[in-house]
Amino acid sequence: MDFGWDARTEELRESLLDLMETRVHPAEAVFAREMTELDDPWAWSRVPVLESLRAEARERGLWNAFMPGPAGAGLTNLQYAPLAEITGRAIQLAPAALNCAAPDTGNMEVLDQFGSDAQKAEWLEPLLRAEIRSAFAMTEPDVASSDATNIATRIERDGDSYVVTGRKWWITGAMNPDCAVFIVMGKTDPSAERHRQQSMILVPRDTPGLTVVRPMSVMGYDDRDHGGHAELVLDGARVPAENLIAGEGDGFAIAQARLGPGRVHHCMRSIGVAERAVELMCDRVSSRTAFGRPLSEQGVIRDWIAESRVRLEQLRLLVLKTAWLMDTVGNKGAHTEIQAIKIATPATVEWILDKAIQAHGAGGLSQDFPLAAAWAGIRTLRFADGPDEVHKNALARAELKRQAARG
Amino acid sequence: MDFGWDARTEELRESLLDLMETRVHPAEAVFAREMTELDDPWAWSRVPVLESLRAEARERGLWNAFMPGPAGAGLTNLQYAPLAEITGRAIQLAPAALNCAAPDTGNMEVLDQFGSDAQKAEWLEPLLRAEIRSAFAMTEPDVASSDATNIATRIERDGDSYVVTGRKWWITGAMNPDCAVFIVMGKTDPSAERHRQQSMILVPRDTPGLTVVRPMSVMGYDDRDHGGHAELVLDGARVPAENLIAGEGDGFAIAQARLGPGRVHHCMRSIGVAERAVELMCDRVSSRTAFGRPLSEQGVIRDWIAESRVRLEQLRLLVLKTAWLMDTVGNKGAHTEIQAIKIATPATVEWILDKAIQAHGAGGLSQDFPLAAAWAGIRTLRFADGPDEVHKNALARAELKRQAARG
Amino acid sequence: MDFGWDARTEELRESLLDLMETRVHPAEAVFAREMTELDDPWAWSRVPVLESLRAEARERGLWNAFMPGPAGAGLTNLQYAPLAEITGRAIQLAPAALNCAAPDTGNMEVLDQFGSDAQKAEWLEPLLRAEIRSAFAMTEPDVASSDATNIATRIERDGDSYVVTGRKWWITGAMNPDCAVFIVMGKTDPSAERHRQQSMILVPRDTPGLTVVRPMSVMGYDDRDHGGHAELVLDGARVPAENLIAGEGDGFAIAQARLGPGRVHHCMRSIGVAERAVELMCDRVSSRTAFGRPLSEQGVIRDWIAESRVRLEQLRLLVLKTAWLMDTVGNKGAHTEIQAIKIATPATVEWILDKAIQAHGAGGLSQDFPLAAAWAGIRTLRFADGPDEVHKNALARAELKRQAARG
Amino acid sequence: MDFGWDARTEELRESLLDLMETRVHPAEAVFAREMTELDDPWAWSRVPVLESLRAEARERGLWNAFMPGPAGAGLTNLQYAPLAEITGRAIQLAPAALNCAAPDTGNMEVLDQFGSDAQKAEWLEPLLRAEIRSAFAMTEPDVASSDATNIATRIERDGDSYVVTGRKWWITGAMNPDCAVFIVMGKTDPSAERHRQQSMILVPRDTPGLTVVRPMSVMGYDDRDHGGHAELVLDGARVPAENLIAGEGDGFAIAQARLGPGRVHHCMRSIGVAERAVELMCDRVSSRTAFGRPLSEQGVIRDWIAESRVRLEQLRLLVLKTAWLMDTVGNKGAHTEIQAIKIATPATVEWILDKAIQAHGAGGLSQDFPLAAAWAGIRTLRFADGPDEVHKNALARAELKRQAARG
Repeated sequence: MDFGWDARTEELRESLLDLMETRVHPAEAVFAREMTELDDPWAWSRVPVLESLRAEARERGLWNAFMPGPAGAGLTNLQYAPLAEITGRAIQLAPAALNCAAPDTGNMEVLDQFGSDAQKAEWLEPLLRAEIRSAFAMTEPDVASSDATNIATRIERDGDSYVVTGRKWWITGAMNPDCAVFIVMGKTDPSAERHRQQSMILVPRDTPGLTVVRPMSVMGYDDRDHGGHAELVLDGARVPAENLIAGEGDGFAIAQARLGPGRVHHCMRSIGVAERAVELMCDRVSSRTAFGRPLSEQGVIRDWIAESRVRLEQLRLLVLKTAWLMDTVGNKGAHTEIQAIKIATPATVEWILDKAIQAHGAGGLSQDFPLAAAWAGIRTLRFADGPDEVHKNALARAELKRQAARG
Repeated sequence: MDFGWDARTEELRESLLDLMETRVHPAEAVFAREMTELDDPWAWSRVPVLESLRAEARERGLWNAFMPGPAGAGLTNLQYAPLAEITGRAIQLAPAALNCAAPDTGNMEVLDQFGSDAQKAEWLEPLLRAEIRSAFAMTEPDVASSDATNIATRIERDGDSYVVTGRKWWITGAMNPDCAVFIVMGKTDPSAERHRQQSMILVPRDTPGLTVVRPMSVMGYDDRDHGGHAELVLDGARVPAENLIAGEGDGFAIAQARLGPGRVHHCMRSIGVAERAVELMCDRVSSRTAFGRPLSEQGVIRDWIAESRVRLEQLRLLVLKTAWLMDTVGNKGAHTEIQAIKIATPATVEWILDKAIQAHGAGGLSQDFPLAAAWAGIRTLRFADGPDEVHKNALARAELKRQAARG
Repeated sequence: MDFGWDARTEELRESLLDLMETRVHPAEAVFAREMTELDDPWAWSRVPVLESLRAEARERGLWNAFMPGPAGAGLTNLQYAPLAEITGRAIQLAPAALNCAAPDTGNMEVLDQFGSDAQKAEWLEPLLRAEIRSAFAMTEPDVASSDATNIATRIERDGDSYVVTGRKWWITGAMNPDCAVFIVMGKTDPSAERHRQQSMILVPRDTPGLTVVRPMSVMGYDDRDHGGHAELVLDGARVPAENLIAGEGDGFAIAQARLGPGRVHHCMRSIGVAERAVELMCDRVSSRTAFGRPLSEQGVIRDWIAESRVRLEQLRLLVLKTAWLMDTVGNKGAHTEIQAIKIATPATVEWILDKAIQAHGAGGLSQDFPLAAAWAGIRTLRFADGPDEVHKNALARAELKRQAARG
Repeated sequence: MDFGWDARTEELRESLLDLMETRVHPAEAVFAREMTELDDPWAWSRVPVLESLRAEARERGLWNAFMPGPAGAGLTNLQYAPLAEITGRAIQLAPAALNCAAPDTGNMEVLDQFGSDAQKAEWLEPLLRAEIRSAFAMTEPDVASSDATNIATRIERDGDSYVVTGRKWWITGAMNPDCAVFIVMGKTDPSAERHRQQSMILVPRDTPGLTVVRPMSVMGYDDRDHGGHAELVLDGARVPAENLIAGEGDGFAIAQARLGPGRVHHCMRSIGVAERAVELMCDRVSSRTAFGRPLSEQGVIRDWIAESRVRLEQLRLLVLKTAWLMDTVGNKGAHTEIQAIKIATPATVEWILDKAIQAHGAGGLSQDFPLAAAWAGIRTLRFADGPDEVHKNALARAELKRQAARG
């Protein structure tokens, strides 16, 4: 159980910290302004300042840092973890600057791991170069989608094609016109065994029958700075049969494989979000006085700061252990820990953000600080990949089984 | 300690419930659509559907129901409480339909209680008829405004005028062009005794030197449906001396007087918000199935529903007791209870909304349900009239004093 | 919904407060000492100081105050509630002094409501005179007893007798040699409908086959000052058939009937426990200094005091409403509220006691203050009459049903 | 940051696990019985079964495992940590069997680090051989002892002697007649600088003027199985001047030095306590059925199990990191982490024990399971070495300083 930074990690960390200090943080306000000047308000990936940051990231070897194999920077999860945390400190901009932003990261991993050569050439290559964006279409409005057997979208074979029919929502990134392709989860065989009913298929944006219906908002935010969250209708969208990823019935397994790294990345970035919140909280309470004493000397606020630090340290260690386990025993072996960080991260980070907001007074809820938007983003993690309750249930079942085996 | 509904309350409740059922709830979608069709997006008070609702409310004797004396419906706090709760079930529309929406309610009370005859004629009368809207300008961006001695805005006498200089933010309603007047809190005498430094003055919207700088957002919501929250600059805004409300140095006392009824109204409406959330939660979990069982049969969700009910019943009783105390021993005698409901209400209602959101899945955070917007609104109550922490501190000091007197 | 005290309540309250001040509180230390001087350490009902308190309580009309009909003081639940709260301030002594201590109270109610004339003459009369004590034997060690269908004890008819066989534990009061009779719950017909399998029967202490096996302890306390909690074995204990209470199959209904008043009493006393804890907390923090400031001025401690007051006020109102409902619409009509207070009371009071203990430093956990023992007592309420989780589940089911009926 | 077990740790772990399985767990009931057969009920160290366990521990090289230098087993904190955790699974017996029980461990460290050769020969040597026991006398009944400047005990020089006068309580182990010596904290110079007023001195049990007044109880437990907690009076207790540990004014620094390892040991053992609680909880809910389903399939209980696992994993990692830091950068460098685990451990373990108790039904509070006693023990950790609130305050101050330095 060795979580230390090796030489390469240390080097990349320093490079990334320098990039953040000298380029990313100064670019945050520019990005916000340039977002308002776009022809298409959802086309965040075309914001000018981003291109120069990307060039710099490529040069520093930070490009595609999330990507484990030769297709990316080739880092282990444990090597990438501290980098992901740092990018969380500028969550709107830094992950995108490194081409390490969800959902493209997970989609690239799927294509790298399960895609055919043709699929890789057509979609993975331009994604790795950030020339296009992609989306992952799993959640449906009409059912509790955390139970994969509820998925109602159909993928039906018809000659050399598959025909896709269904309705999806919360498809992150899909409002962006540069989002060129959707990985759609649907059922090819509803009568198969529970976890072999589902398949995944690539549906290009311009496929007839695919309609982007509307943007969904999260607590009042439309999240246009990463392409929003769309509701989609697939009404007999026909794609070539070779667009299927891996084989029929492999959809559930691919989804599971996609989750592990995705979660560890989300969690590490969220820790960066929380660290920035602690900084902002400390700065704020050190600069304000009420009833004759600086806020920083008031007991309740001290309690918040202490609890934030204590909880955050514990969380980070668990995420690092998870990354280390994934590297050493594989994603399957790290299954319980992956669930554990998915449960622990939003609980901890949401709490810290709430206190940081409260310490800011009403300003904390406004556009003047990044705290409220961060809160909304973290709140979604309690749903992402299924609500916490589903994961707790599964984790407990595993614990009960493990304990029963002990006797 | 009698919280029962008398005959008049019962009658008004039934009338209001009927109004909600037949007119207000059907108008919610209309209001939302008509909001998008306004020339000025902030001018909510001009939305057509609202006018017909107002007429109906006037006819039913529900108009100005909040207003205690002859100027309004003449109800006690205890009589108004169940009505306010009901309006909370359509929080964007129903309070406005009855001319019972903050911050106008508090402003009307201030004018009724402390205004000169001329002030009443000029501002109170049109407010009572809903011809204009008003705002209350206390919070400042640069200081912890919960400590009134921090107020930096100056109100300086100059001949027959006062000249007002300062910066305010979170001025609710101020983006609405129909918001014709601001009650501004500032210091007339910074060298006076702690609670005699402040005064309140009426500043008409068109006063030179008064600028509405920008709207503030709350968790991504701009709250245009009640006039938003503005940042204001007062740069030497000159108004006639007779615009001062009551005398120099009375500002703190007026602010205190304004708080009591305002809080009890906020709290009652918030209970209505929570009741609607419980309904939505129950409906949702009764209509969804995951992993072979309806959500409504899953233990954790049952726990949320039970806790919601148990907490909400306790909260309502405390708010009713507070209303009853205000009616029987006055706002001063109810001081501790007024603080208590200000602390308890957001804690309870926020918790219930969070669970209702979680029970909805990701949809709960979106524009498709009123839960996320309600959450944001309730979250602001932990700051409104000073952060909870200030009130807890004061309530504890009073308890310690009371206990010390016991011995 | 009128919770006010009428003249009789006011009079009894004043008399009881005077009794507490002049007699009960001074007797607390005497009682503790005399407990150590008993021949049988469990025979708390023989402690000398208690007899004089009982005489005084009789004289003041406070005797059997819990008992609703002519057999007792004839008070309503709402009249008794404030008295029960006051006795909670000296929880070891005051309820016993008024003959208002559980489990005898519930047993007397059962006999009064369901007992035959002969049963009343033999057991109720001496209980009302506090000449004997009684116990209620429902919980079993080998099953989850909150589910009445799990009850394994058998009550089998054999000629003119019933023969009782089973094992019980947590039989409060049973270690006291003056505990002359047990009301035992068992199954007369395991094949009957779910809630008609159980019956209740009176088993005198000296019945052959009944063995008091051992005392159970609660967090290290043996609770000898109210007769401990025993494990019992009933090994073919034979009693006359007329010892059955009401008819065969009535056991579940009697148990339900017993719960309502019992809970409201428990909850009111618990509020008294919490009020004393708040007093002790305030006293302690006002008399101690650390790091240059009295504890009473430290923010975190102020937060505890404020939260205690806010939570306690809400809880009391809910308990009063429940009492009022029981008086006006009956125990059935108050079912949801009875469950609600059973859930809310230990949660709130345990929290307050925990903070009061923490404010006392290590002394708070010791025999020098009543806080730790009170905590242990309150902790048991989360199990008494079934764990909270069972009640929350049922309350949620009722809420779901109610909401479904709304549409 | 490498928390892995090296070969020696692995070997000792396996040996200890074997010892637990084959000797310690079977001896638990024997120990409990033999405790009741002692002539002096407090003389736990004389229990026969303990001697054979000690012999075995010595043979296996597990003796004095806590002791870092050549005087003990020579393990690092990180090596000892997993061993301490394992002993926590039989918290009454295993630490004592390895001579690794508080407060002797801390006292041995103090003597090893600060004692004179004569002091080591007289007290350290027999302690290392477990021939005598010792106590640490810091806390006082009359002041908030977490603030060392409050200490009222005086240590006054008088010729070749020091004369000690004061009152102490919560002196763990002191009821045991084998507790031969007390390390007493008092002030030698109340006028010195804040942290140079205190000194520590060795006071043998038989010193005239030293009286063991009474045992303190913790939630009803007298903790006789580790020598109880005594109140002491020192009334002019005279000891030779050479009994002073280190120099005058060194008391505060010695106390601080003693805390680091002590806390990490406490925390590791507490994790063992929690692991055993999770096991017991899983066993219990797997063997009980209510309302037609095993408890282990009920959602709320699953939630408890999942939360327990998630919290415990995080806590363990933080404790391991702290141990690793102490080994690599020293106790000073690990100061924040030592505070953090002191705060996090009781919060987490108390929560888990509470749920394990609840899952057991009323039995969980009784003598039939180790859970209630464990809860009481863990509850004291929120006071030990000063209440959590003091530590949170200090941790927050350090964080604020660190953040201020960042800018």
